[in-house]
Amino acid sequence: MFTITELSTERINRIVQEALGFAEGKTARIEGDVFCSNLFFEDSTRTKTSFDIAERKLGLQVVPFDASNSSVNKGESLYDTVKTIESLGVNLVVIRDKKDRYFDELKNIKIPVINGGDGTGNHPSQCMLDLMTIYQEFGKFEGLKVGIVGDVKHSRVANSNAEALRRLGAKVYFSGPEQWFDEGALINGTYLSVDEMIHEVDVLMLLRIQHERHDSKMSFSASEYHRKYGLTKERERAMKKEAIIMHPAPINRGVEIDTDLVECGRSRIFRQMQNGVFARMAILKEALEKEGYTFK
Amino acid sequence: MFTITELSTERINRIVQEALGFAEGKTARIEGDVFCSNLFFEDSTRTKTSFDIAERKLGLQVVPFDASNSSVNKGESLYDTVKTIESLGVNLVVIRDKKDRYFDELKNIKIPVINGGDGTGNHPSQCMLDLMTIYQEFGKFEGLKVGIVGDVKHSRVANSNAEALRRLGAKVYFSGPEQWFDEGALINGTYLSVDEMIHEVDVLMLLRIQHERHDSKMSFSASEYHRKYGLTKERERAMKKEAIIMHPAPINRGVEIDTDLVECGRSRIFRQMQNGVFARMAILKEALEKEGYTFK
Amino acid sequence: MFTITELSTERINRIVQEALGFAEGKTARIEGDVFCSNLFFEDSTRTKTSFDIAERKLGLQVVPFDASNSSVNKGESLYDTVKTIESLGVNLVVIRDKKDRYFDELKNIKIPVINGGDGTGNHPSQCMLDLMTIYQEFGKFEGLKVGIVGDVKHSRVANSNAEALRRLGAKVYFSGPEQWFDEGALINGTYLSVDEMIHEVDVLMLLRIQHERHDSKMSFSASEYHRKYGLTKERERAMKKEAIIMHPAPINRGVEIDTDLVECGRSRIFRQMQNGVFARMAILKEALEKEGYTFK
Repeated sequence: MFTITELSTERINRIVQEALGFAEGKTARIEGDVFCSNLFFEDSTRTKTSFDIAERKLGLQVVPFDASNSSVNKGESLYDTVKTIESLGVNLVVIRDKKDRYFDELKNIKIPVINGGDGTGNHPSQCMLDLMTIYQEFGKFEGLKVGIVGDVKHSRVANSNAEALRRLGAKVYFSGPEQWFDEGALINGTYLSVDEMIHEVDVLMLLRIQHERHDSKMSFSASEYHRKYGLTKERERAMKKEAIIMHPAPINRGVEIDTDLVECGRSRIFRQMQNGVFARMAILKEALEKEGYTFK
Repeated sequence: MFTITELSTERINRIVQEALGFAEGKTARIEGDVFCSNLFFEDSTRTKTSFDIAERKLGLQVVPFDASNSSVNKGESLYDTVKTIESLGVNLVVIRDKKDRYFDELKNIKIPVINGGDGTGNHPSQCMLDLMTIYQEFGKFEGLKVGIVGDVKHSRVANSNAEALRRLGAKVYFSGPEQWFDEGALINGTYLSVDEMIHEVDVLMLLRIQHERHDSKMSFSASEYHRKYGLTKERERAMKKEAIIMHPAPINRGVEIDTDLVECGRSRIFRQMQNGVFARMAILKEALEKEGYTFK
Repeated sequence: MFTITELSTERINRIVQEALGFAEGKTARIEGDVFCSNLFFEDSTRTKTSFDIAERKLGLQVVPFDASNSSVNKGESLYDTVKTIESLGVNLVVIRDKKDRYFDELKNIKIPVINGGDGTGNHPSQCMLDLMTIYQEFGKFEGLKVGIVGDVKHSRVANSNAEALRRLGAKVYFSGPEQWFDEGALINGTYLSVDEMIHEVDVLMLLRIQHERHDSKMSFSASEYHRKYGLTKERERAMKKEAIIMHPAPINRGVEIDTDLVECGRSRIFRQMQNGVFARMAILKEALEKEGYTFK
């Protein structure tokens, strides 16, 4: 699984339902010795650990892979590295890489490749956990209003989520510094100011401010961002009664969200992390079943 | 478990006895899938590997965590990192951190946190393995004379050990460069010169010279330290017949101790490492049983 | 197992046969909880991962060891580090180190030590997998002609292979830049030009150009090396009908070998990686059986 675009809404729904089953206590354990490895060429403790635990819960054997010491650093191509891992007998890999659509180079790899995030492009497992968290709350997608605040254009999460939500029947709004939104960023939603949006939405998704990526564009300080676009206590009070707050984490406390709201009643931020393991179990199980592996 | 101070002598004795049981071949295996992770924000292969093996011997699943690539380096707070790990479904964490009493920030974490060492403060699992090694040798603590040589004030090990030994009825002596000892360092023991101490003690604990921490204070060379305060062959000959030598390792051979004495008859240095796994099994088992987990 | 020199041809044959059994689907699983650790003080994802998978397939518990954070970096000797790992209850270690014959320091270690490569000296597990790959193809060693192209003198692989093949009855030829060959390099074989060799050999082993090691000696560019000594498409066409191509990887595509030949019909390069796991299973099993461990 590389992108959300390639998934039919039927398949998305099937994975969401499987993930919800795991959240409710369903278990699945693979039969036989099956090996997987998480090739993370870009740091992400959260996503990597989430996959790692999902894999172990399914009974897979997780073969460690240290990207920082790998031959990729000696100039080996991604294809040759993955082909090596496949030759060594690993039965499935999860890959995160800085390069957009790195998976286009991997057509001749025969084992399943799960996309753990590519460049600024896709992050389908994060998308599935976000969808699952929304469904868990509202029991549907159709007719929901979802607001996404932040640098939508450069966010893997926002792109995948907005597209999927639109296809599933939700209405998507975007907000954040206007200079971050041009036509390309608004394919799957409509721009609103944060204060217009806050009264409307059932789901408020805050994106992480990527200081790393905005050095030149960031023309405001953290506290200025918070005041203009962040979730302050006042804004939280203006939200609809049943509305929930989401954030892919790691959080910049006091920037995207007031520190006291991180664990408030309508925050689903740590619930998202819990759900991440279940969503990834569903994704992995689907990929392995397609290869003929069985679970008990 | 964060500090030795918080442990009653009864609880210390119970853990020591459990650890001695493991050393004699007793086994315990947790029931069900239980996940743990070792969050070591300060390097320590020895302690980390010791916990890792203890966890595996108890049947826990050890989820790898690479501190050097974690979000803590992107400015995430320790609390948010640990809360994330908890949300991902990890059932117990062991933490080592450079910050004294880092655990004070973690009050809202619901899973057990085991202290693998904090700043210059506490190192309770090392203390338990040292106590266990002494008990294994003498079958008691009451009335034993224990000498600790080195930078007691900046040593996690020395602080915890001296306090516990005093409470358990042993008499503690300290030695080393006098400028390292002020009033604060002498709460749990009495200063003696190395040559006075050597005839007296049943247990001689040598501390590692932390070159890292003494750049300015170290006014003597390694060989000068060895001659003045180290365990030379002459000093070893002056020890009581049944007295034993301990060192938390890694050893600076030829500084704290003559290289030929590292594996001599009265050295318990590698025995301490063996015992470390058993002491940590006892600590982990106690923490997990308190949460309702069962072992067979 | 440290070197190929120490192995009788009978023992080499026994390990090759055991490895071939694993390749054909035979399995072996150790009885009881047995711990191993891979101490790689020099990076090698490929070899480390191969051992890791071999160990897991045999049912061993693999204790992670991060050389870059280990006490060896604080000046601890290799002996003290390995003695520590042994004391912690690890039952077998695999070691790779930059130092030639590092294992000479480890005489007092009681657990089995498997050599995962030492300096420019030995790499017996790579040798076993190469031998196994050749035997798998031809069903014999006697009378085969094997050509090795590259920096034989500085190659662990070439040294071990040439010696073993000669002892097993094969005829070994060497090729590559003439300045890389002096008397010391030609103990186990004869120098031929690449174009002379290509018509003769049943097995063509290409060695990796170690840019790291040749800064001063490398007086030609990558494309010049390819043209003069590399396996071009023309040269491949000149090979004998049943001849095979081998390379220990990672490959410099377009240098040692034309990129289109890497997965051509006579290439066994990825097969070698597959076989590596089986060869290492055989090596590990032999070492553990000698210690009295049993497999089912």
